Amino acid sequence: MKIVIVGAVAAGPKTACRARRLLPDAEITMIDQDDLISYGGCGIPYYVSGDVADENALRTTSYHLVRNEEFFKNAKGVNTLVLTKALAIDRKSKKVLIENVKTGEQNELHYDKLVLTTGSSPFVLPLPGKDLEGIYTVASLHKAIAIKDDVAKGKVSKAVVIGGGAIGIEMAEAFADLWQIPVTIVEFMPQILPRIVSPEIAAMVTQHMKEHGVEVLTSEAAKEFVGDEKGRVKKVITNKREIDADLVIMAAGVRPRSELAVGAGLHVSANGAIVVNKRMQTSDPDIYAAGDCVDVICNVTGKRIVAPMGSVANRQGRVVGDNLAGIPSTFDGWQGSFVMKVFELCVGATGISAQVAKAEGFDSCDVLCVQSDRAHFFPTQAQMFLNMVVDKSNRRVLGINGMGVMGDGLMARINAAAGLIERKATIADFSNLELAYAPPFSTAMDILNSTANVADNLVSGRMRPISPLEFSDWMEAKRVEPDWMVLDVRHPREVAPFLKAFPDKWFALVYDKVRAEYKTLPAGKTFLIICNAGTRSYEIQVFLNSVGIKNTLVVAGATNVLRRLGKDWWITVNQED
Amino acid sequence: MKIVIVGAVAAGPKTACRARRLLPDAEITMIDQDDLISYGGCGIPYYVSGDVADENALRTTSYHLVRNEEFFKNAKGVNTLVLTKALAIDRKSKKVLIENVKTGEQNELHYDKLVLTTGSSPFVLPLPGKDLEGIYTVASLHKAIAIKDDVAKGKVSKAVVIGGGAIGIEMAEAFADLWQIPVTIVEFMPQILPRIVSPEIAAMVTQHMKEHGVEVLTSEAAKEFVGDEKGRVKKVITNKREIDADLVIMAAGVRPRSELAVGAGLHVSANGAIVVNKRMQTSDPDIYAAGDCVDVICNVTGKRIVAPMGSVANRQGRVVGDNLAGIPSTFDGWQGSFVMKVFELCVGATGISAQVAKAEGFDSCDVLCVQSDRAHFFPTQAQMFLNMVVDKSNRRVLGINGMGVMGDGLMARINAAAGLIERKATIADFSNLELAYAPPFSTAMDILNSTANVADNLVSGRMRPISPLEFSDWMEAKRVEPDWMVLDVRHPREVAPFLKAFPDKWFALVYDKVRAEYKTLPAGKTFLIICNAGTRSYEIQVFLNSVGIKNTLVVAGATNVLRRLGKDWWITVNQED
Repeated sequence: MKIVIVGAVAAGPKTACRARRLLPDAEITMIDQDDLISYGGCGIPYYVSGDVADENALRTTSYHLVRNEEFFKNAKGVNTLVLTKALAIDRKSKKVLIENVKTGEQNELHYDKLVLTTGSSPFVLPLPGKDLEGIYTVASLHKAIAIKDDVAKGKVSKAVVIGGGAIGIEMAEAFADLWQIPVTIVEFMPQILPRIVSPEIAAMVTQHMKEHGVEVLTSEAAKEFVGDEKGRVKKVITNKREIDADLVIMAAGVRPRSELAVGAGLHVSANGAIVVNKRMQTSDPDIYAAGDCVDVICNVTGKRIVAPMGSVANRQGRVVGDNLAGIPSTFDGWQGSFVMKVFELCVGATGISAQVAKAEGFDSCDVLCVQSDRAHFFPTQAQMFLNMVVDKSNRRVLGINGMGVMGDGLMARINAAAGLIERKATIADFSNLELAYAPPFSTAMDILNSTANVADNLVSGRMRPISPLEFSDWMEAKRVEPDWMVLDVRHPREVAPFLKAFPDKWFALVYDKVRAEYKTLPAGKTFLIICNAGTRSYEIQVFLNSVGIKNTLVVAGATNVLRRLGKDWWITVNQED
Repeated sequence: MKIVIVGAVAAGPKTACRARRLLPDAEITMIDQDDLISYGGCGIPYYVSGDVADENALRTTSYHLVRNEEFFKNAKGVNTLVLTKALAIDRKSKKVLIENVKTGEQNELHYDKLVLTTGSSPFVLPLPGKDLEGIYTVASLHKAIAIKDDVAKGKVSKAVVIGGGAIGIEMAEAFADLWQIPVTIVEFMPQILPRIVSPEIAAMVTQHMKEHGVEVLTSEAAKEFVGDEKGRVKKVITNKREIDADLVIMAAGVRPRSELAVGAGLHVSANGAIVVNKRMQTSDPDIYAAGDCVDVICNVTGKRIVAPMGSVANRQGRVVGDNLAGIPSTFDGWQGSFVMKVFELCVGATGISAQVAKAEGFDSCDVLCVQSDRAHFFPTQAQMFLNMVVDKSNRRVLGINGMGVMGDGLMARINAAAGLIERKATIADFSNLELAYAPPFSTAMDILNSTANVADNLVSGRMRPISPLEFSDWMEAKRVEPDWMVLDVRHPREVAPFLKAFPDKWFALVYDKVRAEYKTLPAGKTFLIICNAGTRSYEIQVFLNSVGIKNTLVVAGATNVLRRLGKDWWITVNQED
């Protein structure tokens, strides 16, 4: 059997190696138009930052062999042609027309089975000046080397990143952290990581980035790039301002590379992606496709979506390898599991966000839970934040997203949720999920259990929350409600500066005295109950309900979130403190 | 409604607080024979070590209120009687006979619903000398304070821990790490963490403990405790030796405390535990029970088992609270999710081990996979080890257990597996599980995916492994097979010392030359193929198969495991290196 694989970065090599192990006698040929192949593209920001010493580290196996043509030939038994572009597929005669991109020499490769792992192209915003020197996408190892070269040679005194998604944020950190280059992120949507994390998580991450020297501009669009006399970018013009920049990263998403498939008459979706079935077969059963160039079914919405992730490409590659050998493996779906480092924080998600749930027509709601990531008495404990999105109609959990201190703790919760969300698990399933527990790692009731418990209380109508961002709006009088006060149940020491700053709005009654002294509460007010995390506030709301005081709202996440939003009203208080 | 709760450590307070929030008008009374209640018992080893500064930290909320009678009364609206023992239950008239353990005064408490959260007692080995001063169980905060007192006052120069389970190991570390007290663990079974982790994981953890000054004696039983003239323990006599000790911890498991339930004629299982249904109701529907005093159904085996864990108690307490209020929540089962710190390592599991699977009659096998816990090019990467146990008949994953460097990375994989194993997921489900990925956190093909892939290869008959402990036996000639050699495919630099140490047994042919030079292999040998992790060895096994060399075995986990076993033959090599 002759297998030809077009594309040799992630899904391609994985397919080749799995097929080789299952089909010792097959002739496997892998081609790529680039000369650098089989590299860890997700590592590019860490290569630029310097965490990863040189670009070869991204191309090397864990046992220190560089994954080049010789490696694939000698170690894997896979023929590899680099600098070789596939021009066209002749499905009838089962041939691929190829061209050496250096010499222009053309040839044909016969195949019995063809695999398209042609990847994606970064989306280049069609703006004036887009071709200036110093404007890069994060599209290949060559681009990464060029960026690193600019940085290491001191050419960059100010960088602008267009796009506040994961890659944009990772690149911003790469410049700001180890190179100490001032960076501005310009994000078109009202928050970073749009459609991925909740507004509160995004706001807290934004504030953290600002504290680490990254300027974050949301709801703002780049309009033009201006160059200097040598043709290098010197300025980014947005709809709101001009920003100096001698390096610009365009991280505005990617588009599937499906031209070859289109040319061959294969079915391509509205996303521009090659359509495959669960076995990764295209509309031609002898042609498979995998990686960034295909789209996948979202486990939650059931819709086709492009999921350009190295982890997806690798798992799909194995499925293709299996099917080439007659093993009926399937790739069943995708749900956006992700985690990323942002300076001293990590951020992650799986399933869909509240924003997507609303857009997709779910009857959804979401909760924000804050809790210690390990026993609160354990020295290394820190706050973790989880946002859970649920379908009110059937209590299905549609997604979680969250934030914690840098480490694997948040991933432990995201991963725990991944398999459950895939299986359409409900709030009760999360409430009772048996997670590993010991004080150095978690709490007896893990934050994932607790978050489900909060969701249960919300969906059951037992809790009436207000989000910390909405509460901040109230505090900043952006929405003037009549006759409301904060009921602050924290320790008097914690409450004092707020009483001083907002004497008309703040009322103090400490948590363990509410049952005895609730009658001292002013009459006729709406109370926004506040504590450190929202837990005590909820208890107080329930108690006040039982004594007939029903016009209350619990400030979700409470001061643990509020203090991380960077809002003016909060900063005022602390300056007075 | 009058609710009486007997026991106020974990499940009891959780029940009380949840019931209070759901039933504002109920009268809730919680009693406990101790004066210290609602403490984090799992934190005791960290209190003894000094990681947790004082015992009050284990009794304090995250907002710094001590959880005592006043706290439950004022903050929670729960009446609490400490130093109060429940003597008997009169189910007919719905009364509990109670006694003040200080004054001897007796009273009756009427209940509409009764909740038994009576916990467990540590098992005290019935050995001569067991009542000597300095011999402790880890049973209560009072015991913990006494142990810490002995340690802090310099009374302890040598400690012996009876039992190599989780609590025994945690206590051994507490003594050895911050107090630098020499410690010996005596474990009756052939390995530490018996029935929980694989022999290889146990052996690697044992070796790590030895390197941190803890002596570990397995397959060894304490027979007698010998005291000094003041009645304090000075020696532990085992079936093999005498060990000096001025402090002994008995960590030989716990027994459910079900005397009260037995006295009331409630159904108690062969485990000695109170039998409850999924709603945590005993055989008397007005009496609930939860926590260490009940048994639970194992999600994997379907059998009743005692699961004395704080996390289980908390989740069960919430279920009881719900049901008291008419919300039909259920506690569906248990599967041993656990994680623990062992000096610079962590160890964890969920589901059942290979040993339990065999004992329970499953047609099972297991694999050991070693892989970087994050991208191998990322600076903080370290090796992680996962053992996956599968049912060959239906490819169901029965359990995983593993080891990694201290941190939350291993927990991230244990937690990911927990929900899947509960749902009877198969190897393919794990192979395709969509875990969160970015280079600082994991690998594109996560170790959990990879471990499933290895299991797939094993169950499909594509891989023939030998375990590293069995390989060590071969090396130490404990099992003499005819005509075998090691085929070492690592880098020549790595292989050289082995070639020198074992010239007759070792054959070197580097990985990427095997396809070209396999004909140089000696004829008629069984080859044990070795690399760093087992991955390359498997590829070589597949390739050699295809050219007719079929008498090969892959050394699972390879040198990454072998170097951590502390075996003499390995040490010999490295001394020569």
